[in-house]
Amino acid sequence: MITSSANDHIKALRKLEQPKERRSSGTFLAEGLKAVGQAFDSNASILELLISPDLLISEYGRSLVELAEKREIPILELSPQVFARLARKDKPQGIAALISQNWSDINSESASSGSFWLALESIQNPGNLGTILRTCDAVGVSGLILLDESTDPYDPAAVKASTGSIFTVPHFRADFSNFEAFLHRSTDLMVIGTSDKVASSAFEVTFPSTILLLLGSERQGLSDQYVSLCSQMLRIPMEGVCDSLNISIAAGVLLYQIYQQRHPQRRLS
Amino acid sequence: MITSSANDHIKALRKLEQPKERRSSGTFLAEGLKAVGQAFDSNASILELLISPDLLISEYGRSLVELAEKREIPILELSPQVFARLARKDKPQGIAALISQNWSDINSESASSGSFWLALESIQNPGNLGTILRTCDAVGVSGLILLDESTDPYDPAAVKASTGSIFTVPHFRADFSNFEAFLHRSTDLMVIGTSDKVASSAFEVTFPSTILLLLGSERQGLSDQYVSLCSQMLRIPMEGVCDSLNISIAAGVLLYQIYQQRHPQRRLS
Repeated sequence: MITSSANDHIKALRKLEQPKERRSSGTFLAEGLKAVGQAFDSNASILELLISPDLLISEYGRSLVELAEKREIPILELSPQVFARLARKDKPQGIAALISQNWSDINSESASSGSFWLALESIQNPGNLGTILRTCDAVGVSGLILLDESTDPYDPAAVKASTGSIFTVPHFRADFSNFEAFLHRSTDLMVIGTSDKVASSAFEVTFPSTILLLLGSERQGLSDQYVSLCSQMLRIPMEGVCDSLNISIAAGVLLYQIYQQRHPQRRLS
Repeated sequence: MITSSANDHIKALRKLEQPKERRSSGTFLAEGLKAVGQAFDSNASILELLISPDLLISEYGRSLVELAEKREIPILELSPQVFARLARKDKPQGIAALISQNWSDINSESASSGSFWLALESIQNPGNLGTILRTCDAVGVSGLILLDESTDPYDPAAVKASTGSIFTVPHFRADFSNFEAFLHRSTDLMVIGTSDKVASSAFEVTFPSTILLLLGSERQGLSDQYVSLCSQMLRIPMEGVCDSLNISIAAGVLLYQIYQQRHPQRRLS
């Protein structure tokens, strides 16, 4: 059992709070029963399980440890004090996992006919990004493309807000040039952008069947170079004093507009 | 100029971080150019402007100070160090305002014909609540009712996420009995609840013209007593592994479904 926070391995794990350490290692830390359980459920590549037996009191927690043993995943035991240093919560549940990031490669991808994509230009807030991943999972997007200086979906706040969908929604990094190349390879794909300065309402259009929805950053919206890739620009109608919606709300409203048109047979009442 | 954080008035202002202090005083602190500007724009009842002249360098900031002078709002000058203790940001902009909370009274309210309401049972996360206020502003809800142990819309995180709509969306507190009484007084009002365990899709119904949408808390959903007040229960269709949407996304998708039916003439393309 590791009882000192000065332990080199613990220090390395704590550094994963930093974006550049996550990026260079290609790993991240998922913490808590829910996140670790979701990692197991979705067959994420778990490199190591970290437990603090005194804190890990639930049956579910113990079943995850058994699962790790069955899958021959290394298990590291930490004292409650050392575990607390790794944990973000006030009441740590005594379980965390070191997991490989699972990026898909935009350079070997093209949109198949009928697929449904979301791309975000330079999204800033990890909580918003995680929430958007959760909605992507709900509507079944084929992939989420994070453009340019977008925040990290493996940021702890993004992982938490994604409620497991970080493990299920294919995600890609791209800059302008390899995004443009992806669009060139994806012959059927139509790019729909959003802006609050255009006339066409997102509620009054028929969406193409192979579609990529492109959203700009929280503050700036879409930049001109990305607007130039859009075959149509739409806005979400708004009343009131605020001039925009939260980006995760805008994404949710638009993704569900598209979802609805893709599932018109779903009449149950 | 106040130069000591030990100043009694500064201590009292800092206490407004605590929910019970906000509740007992009926005030809150809005901080930063954007929030203070929105308070002025919407004629909020500003009791006091707090500035730190060395930090307040923008023209817009100075114009807000002039506005305060014109409206005879007391202006308190703080040293940068004292101001930083009040501020939540790393780079404080040197302006904050002490503002009266502006609750509407559910006991003197009834829903007029054609109005559109949202009620939330015990919402927990202030950021989610603020984001929902922002969406309420966008779709023009008549009022937001916060039921039972809902979090405080005057929490700093809620105020920030509301981007000014805390000043424009009428909001009410209620418990079960005065909520029920409000419904009794509102003869045309139909209550639509949500649950992920019901068959009817929210995308396949015609909403009543006088409508209250009722959403449960992040973790528990709607409790049985509130379900009993609903004339219809709907779900948002979902694919994927997650069993629910973020509550602010669920609210956004549903509010915009209702909005769309209320604005069918809005065909611009």
